[in-house]
Amino acid sequence: MNKVIGYAPATVGNVACGFDVLGFALTQPGDKVTITYIEKDVPTYEININSIVGDGGVLPKDTNRNTAGITLAKFLDNLLENKLIHPHFQISIDLEKNLPLSSGMGSSASSAAAALIAVNHLFNNIYPKKELVQFAMEGEYLACGSYHADNVSPAILGNFVLIRSYDPLDLIEIPSPTNLYATLIHPHLEVKTADARSILKDQIALKDAVKQWGNVGALVNGLLTQNMGVIGRSLEDFVAEPYRAPLIPSFYDVKHAAKDLGALGCSIAGSGPSLFAFSESEQIAKNVGLAMKEVFKTKAGLNADFWISKLDSPGANVISEHNTVASN
Amino acid sequence: MNKVIGYAPATVGNVACGFDVLGFALTQPGDKVTITYIEKDVPTYEININSIVGDGGVLPKDTNRNTAGITLAKFLDNLLENKLIHPHFQISIDLEKNLPLSSGMGSSASSAAAALIAVNHLFNNIYPKKELVQFAMEGEYLACGSYHADNVSPAILGNFVLIRSYDPLDLIEIPSPTNLYATLIHPHLEVKTADARSILKDQIALKDAVKQWGNVGALVNGLLTQNMGVIGRSLEDFVAEPYRAPLIPSFYDVKHAAKDLGALGCSIAGSGPSLFAFSESEQIAKNVGLAMKEVFKTKAGLNADFWISKLDSPGANVISEHNTVASN
Repeated sequence: MNKVIGYAPATVGNVACGFDVLGFALTQPGDKVTITYIEKDVPTYEININSIVGDGGVLPKDTNRNTAGITLAKFLDNLLENKLIHPHFQISIDLEKNLPLSSGMGSSASSAAAALIAVNHLFNNIYPKKELVQFAMEGEYLACGSYHADNVSPAILGNFVLIRSYDPLDLIEIPSPTNLYATLIHPHLEVKTADARSILKDQIALKDAVKQWGNVGALVNGLLTQNMGVIGRSLEDFVAEPYRAPLIPSFYDVKHAAKDLGALGCSIAGSGPSLFAFSESEQIAKNVGLAMKEVFKTKAGLNADFWISKLDSPGANVISEHNTVASN
Repeated sequence: MNKVIGYAPATVGNVACGFDVLGFALTQPGDKVTITYIEKDVPTYEININSIVGDGGVLPKDTNRNTAGITLAKFLDNLLENKLIHPHFQISIDLEKNLPLSSGMGSSASSAAAALIAVNHLFNNIYPKKELVQFAMEGEYLACGSYHADNVSPAILGNFVLIRSYDPLDLIEIPSPTNLYATLIHPHLEVKTADARSILKDQIALKDAVKQWGNVGALVNGLLTQNMGVIGRSLEDFVAEPYRAPLIPSFYDVKHAAKDLGALGCSIAGSGPSLFAFSESEQIAKNVGLAMKEVFKTKAGLNADFWISKLDSPGANVISEHNTVASN
């Protein structure tokens, strides 16, 4: 029997200007997935979800309806199709959810990435980390109906990831400045990713698109040149935020509170309802979090949790491994 | 009498994916503008265009209808309004055009930038180079009816420039990899910038916009990390090229010829009809130019000129200065 525990952090997709093409990873919180592998004598294989904790009993245990389960299944299908492994095993999944669901914090991506990093390790890191993203995207499709990669890429790879192209998938890793901190705040309400997507327009004004891609270029420049002023100025969103803000009570009050306290910028995390803000120090990031939490409470009557994280995150990693003599 | 000669190079706006937000400068060809300053005893000032050569007699000598003239006038208005100079002078302009008109090579920007760098020098570099861009944009408005900055910014500043925002104007200078070469080819036909703009749609599909800003982010990343593969892959345009290509006979044949010869990528220079291609060496850039020229001739019956240039261009600069005792 082999047992591997994988961990993958919360992530934020879009990052204001980078709708569907940019995401970053935090260092924590994150989900843990324990993969237990038992070899079988007979040529069959089986994947089952043994336990889920931390989800309030909401997530399905059916492998094909669970993001960690479907991701793992697609990964194993690929290995079997390519005859890289033999179908003589049983794999069971124990999932420890530490991220709130439908929060905009990349909850489904975190579970998928943690499962993948563990199972890939189990098979001697058969694929480089970057290759795992395509499998995790299957989990995203299950979770929200679109093959977006802006959460799963940083959940696996860490730091910032730019998705230059989806077809073919072309991922560009962008290191974070070492002194860049995120505040991620989760107000206690749920916004379904699918609903937040359906609210957007299929067509956008060219003049808004020009502003958006000016900002995307500038954000990439700011990250690579560690220019905090440029990073801050580029955190504008003309495409999603104006439509999604009404789904989050007191959004603009909270955003203004963050910037008043010294945040470089602030926007919706993924499709919401969480918000992220960037700051130049841990202390500012904490002050920003406290101010945002206070405004959610006083203006919207909402409780909220927040996390502070550096952004030079390593992404998904294996946190423990146990090899024991087979007991069957 | 003071005489200053300014030079500013050809530039390419858009750069495939960066419609209205990206531009780069060549080192040559470029326009030369001679500014002659004569002090007057009476409190009046006058700007006149003394001569224009190389334009085939096409450009107007009326100061307010000439891009170099209007740019200079706006610059001097600003200095006078801010009481930085006294209105006791006559300035005359001699313009040497070395760029073809309506070519997509930034002809109007080159004249405006050369005039500005010269007159700014005359007044002891009263503004930093970056501040000159706003004045040059007045010339662009005159030339094509829009205040775009993707030619004038690199014409003045050199290298690549990203316009993060137009309001307020926020310019980000991006150094070029030292081994990046451009081929710029000008087929002998004219496309008016205003016509090439009017052909575009006011609205674009969100899915195309996402591809476009993925490429803008990637191009900025490729330039800063000197990753030629990323630069090449990001040179895609889903917004302007598909609509403007029909204005350029055999566009796709010429583009394919460039890529077949080893160019990293190829697209329309600004609003055309010129095309640019990027290559990793001077030799490839030359081969690419020869192949493109050949295809324009054989497929479209068009003659064409091409230039090869490194891309770490210094932009506009003063090439000579003469101080003589006033003769009046």
